[in-house]
Amino acid sequence: MRQPTAAYHTLMTPDTVEGLRQRLLQFAQARDWLQFHSPKNLSCALVVEAGELLEHFQWLTDEESRNLAPAKREAVAAEMADVFIYLVQLSSAMGVDLVQAAQQKIDLNEQRYPADRARGHNKKYDEL
Amino acid sequence: MRQPTAAYHTLMTPDTVEGLRQRLLQFAQARDWLQFHSPKNLSCALVVEAGELLEHFQWLTDEESRNLAPAKREAVAAEMADVFIYLVQLSSAMGVDLVQAAQQKIDLNEQRYPADRARGHNKKYDEL
Amino acid sequence: MRQPTAAYHTLMTPDTVEGLRQRLLQFAQARDWLQFHSPKNLSCALVVEAGELLEHFQWLTDEESRNLAPAKREAVAAEMADVFIYLVQLSSAMGVDLVQAAQQKIDLNEQRYPADRARGHNKKYDEL
Amino acid sequence: MRQPTAAYHTLMTPDTVEGLRQRLLQFAQARDWLQFHSPKNLSCALVVEAGELLEHFQWLTDEESRNLAPAKREAVAAEMADVFIYLVQLSSAMGVDLVQAAQQKIDLNEQRYPADRARGHNKKYDEL
Repeated sequence: MRQPTAAYHTLMTPDTVEGLRQRLLQFAQARDWLQFHSPKNLSCALVVEAGELLEHFQWLTDEESRNLAPAKREAVAAEMADVFIYLVQLSSAMGVDLVQAAQQKIDLNEQRYPADRARGHNKKYDEL
Repeated sequence: MRQPTAAYHTLMTPDTVEGLRQRLLQFAQARDWLQFHSPKNLSCALVVEAGELLEHFQWLTDEESRNLAPAKREAVAAEMADVFIYLVQLSSAMGVDLVQAAQQKIDLNEQRYPADRARGHNKKYDEL
Repeated sequence: MRQPTAAYHTLMTPDTVEGLRQRLLQFAQARDWLQFHSPKNLSCALVVEAGELLEHFQWLTDEESRNLAPAKREAVAAEMADVFIYLVQLSSAMGVDLVQAAQQKIDLNEQRYPADRARGHNKKYDEL
Repeated sequence: MRQPTAAYHTLMTPDTVEGLRQRLLQFAQARDWLQFHSPKNLSCALVVEAGELLEHFQWLTDEESRNLAPAKREAVAAEMADVFIYLVQLSSAMGVDLVQAAQQKIDLNEQRYPADRARGHNKKYDEL
């Protein structure tokens, strides 16, 4: 049954966060999983996947992390996908528009980190 | 200088993950921050933000996490934005298309978790 | 009332993990907090504190992380304490002897990582 | 060669955090691993293990997390051991006395959370 679902997806939903969110909602509903998808549980799952992502880098140097072998890169991409999936599901559970929330946070960061004062160092805004 | 940047954003980039990615890239470039944005460092930052997200829920019941007061909900949305921002920056550093990676992972999950066998319980696919 | 408690602690409990565990148990009981200390919640709290620990290092180079300024070092020590406190409380909630569990894990790691094969590289045991 | 090491451990070091710390130091030195054990890397490893710990609980209710089947309990204990091992190794790398740091933090928490005001609820000290 995968083909029809994939086809449906390709035809009917634009390839955006909202398209992804709707597909994930249908996926969870079809399995009666929304009962498990409280914001608390989804946040737990998200942090678990973030840990699995970091696991790939924990013993690497910065430089090595910038030059991954193809198989490792694929594995990292799959963990990134898992983080994204839980984040999108959390946005459903919370009723938060992810892209809008991120745009607003960047607006704030542009105020907190003026380019001329923040340039080239890694201090937090309250240390600038 | 925030207004022009925001205006530029609104006019020139669609409100998508790719638009967000380009805006974040310009933000980091303007501050000479790409030197810090190795996949290792961005994964660290992502997991730190995921922890800050979870902090809001750590002592709540499932039910309480589904019924947050408005101020708490805003705070959670801001942490979700931070997670998303680092994830999108990581996608730049890794050259990974986030939405595509997520769609492919859902394709895989549809195979791993057939709706009729996965319905209503929380087992991992290798325990089904 | 802090002095008597501290005095009691100094006199009655040896400065060990078990002494710490008993002190934390009394601390939680006196505040009627054991109702919140499920293994799930304590694991959430532990991962949150682990994230706060990592936050201090997220943008540092390896070398910088080995040479912290005194104030930063104190802040890191306080986060390590928080991680340890939740881990010890989790050991109470789970009935697990932490030191013994760690000793057994090192026994296992000595088998998984024979010194002559594991020397000087950072591969996982199933890649050796 | 495991038996002699274990025997050595049993005979020569008390079963304490300091005994564990010394054993782990010898373990890392014998494999020339201290080069990887920067505070940054050890903090990454710690948060990764904390995530693996939380993974066992992510979809469970609070009540289920208090009543684990024996095999699950063993698996959780092994993850707790991993967290503890990295925390002890970090204490070596940082020159921090873990038990002392924890005792001091509890001293502070006794001031922040007076029993009569903190009893029975889960508010943070600055919300009391």
